[in-house]
Amino acid sequence: MIKVVILGAGNVAFHLINVFSKNKDVKLLQVYNRNIQKIQYLKNDVEITNNLFHLNKTADIYIISIPDDSISEFSKQLKLPNKLVVHTSGSVAINALKSTSNKGVFYPLQSFSKNKKISFKTIPICVEAENKNDITLLEKLATVISTKCYQINSEQRKQIHLAAVFVNNFVNHLYYLGNSICEENNIPFDILHPLIKETAEKVEHLSPFKAQTGPAKRNDIKTMEKQLAMLPKNKKEIYTLLSNSILNTYGKKL
Amino acid sequence: MIKVVILGAGNVAFHLINVFSKNKDVKLLQVYNRNIQKIQYLKNDVEITNNLFHLNKTADIYIISIPDDSISEFSKQLKLPNKLVVHTSGSVAINALKSTSNKGVFYPLQSFSKNKKISFKTIPICVEAENKNDITLLEKLATVISTKCYQINSEQRKQIHLAAVFVNNFVNHLYYLGNSICEENNIPFDILHPLIKETAEKVEHLSPFKAQTGPAKRNDIKTMEKQLAMLPKNKKEIYTLLSNSILNTYGKKL
Repeated sequence: MIKVVILGAGNVAFHLINVFSKNKDVKLLQVYNRNIQKIQYLKNDVEITNNLFHLNKTADIYIISIPDDSISEFSKQLKLPNKLVVHTSGSVAINALKSTSNKGVFYPLQSFSKNKKISFKTIPICVEAENKNDITLLEKLATVISTKCYQINSEQRKQIHLAAVFVNNFVNHLYYLGNSICEENNIPFDILHPLIKETAEKVEHLSPFKAQTGPAKRNDIKTMEKQLAMLPKNKKEIYTLLSNSILNTYGKKL
Repeated sequence: MIKVVILGAGNVAFHLINVFSKNKDVKLLQVYNRNIQKIQYLKNDVEITNNLFHLNKTADIYIISIPDDSISEFSKQLKLPNKLVVHTSGSVAINALKSTSNKGVFYPLQSFSKNKKISFKTIPICVEAENKNDITLLEKLATVISTKCYQINSEQRKQIHLAAVFVNNFVNHLYYLGNSICEENNIPFDILHPLIKETAEKVEHLSPFKAQTGPAKRNDIKTMEKQLAMLPKNKKEIYTLLSNSILNTYGKKL
């Protein structure tokens, strides 16, 4: 049984609280949040507090899950010697933690929204710590909720987080732009779902380099010019830059 | 039983040949291709030809599935009065067909690669024709292979094809850029698959506007600056443009 305290109430914290509180191998001792209102919904299931002096001192792992910018300052306030304190951020180095405790990272590589249920089973958990015992402890915690645990250092995690911005945040924005084209032309966005799904599934079996299709890949200038003429300024810029990038990738030029 | 002739041997033709030749409600009478070598693999299952004079005249539907640029010129050569001749292109209007036949479009909205198996069941088929009987015939053909058939006019189809460039071609290129970041840092691209899949699945239930996450959505300037500093020129340009577009979408500015 791993005893855990969670500090924070954002999207990642929300889903970790949810998965840990249902798991028989984890005991969620306490949830801390500065704004107690945001964690009131938990009060019947777990101890909640907004006072760091009341922090339960008997946990094995303290998980800080708050905005990246605040991690360093917040960690300074924690007085938990000989305890393991981790954060859950993709882009923050382990050394950003300034508590006197042992340091670690427990980064679930997934995009979390509060209003979308998620299964942790297939979420890669990236763990990092300063010593072997803590690595083992974090791996143990990771494997009770997921089948995929990776030991990843701070430099690699920063790169993964950057790659994730491309394949998740920017991809979602392209969905948004596609959706807006549909809306402007009275076409249900549903019609694109099978294509979106297939595009995502294809790269599980084929490298994205090999999976590429479309006018830019074919160097089909006529179609590209026609499509550019259909677009307003913002979409035109994105279309041009991404098409050029595809053309360059395959050794062609617009 | 719908009798069909397919003209062409590209990715779409390949998959249509495959699904029609296995379907008991469709009789694939013949496959035509200018270069006979590309369809030699079919010769034991279906009649093949590279001579338009030998075209079987008894089919109900002639499906032209060749590069967009060639459809118009190619269709002029067809002498099939009172027959239905369709193309399979997303970006070509129905009127590009110049045969003396009845005109139509049979556009399966999916990205096809020869080396990736595909199930037609969930692929939206967009059909268009000049008269009601032909619409009915195309809908009949669509529903023997798919559960999703949409009546879509040429203007809408052009817009769908454009939206598809954003959600498929450009999205795949972002996967490629994410993959290259992984490769440069000895990180297995596999680690991003669950995120890629979740990002795609999320927009089946949530609008892309609501599903957006990431530094640009949060207006997290510090993270964006740090990430920009990590990127080479090409990726930096794409990062900047897409982040700005996200910021604008949510009423913020970089």
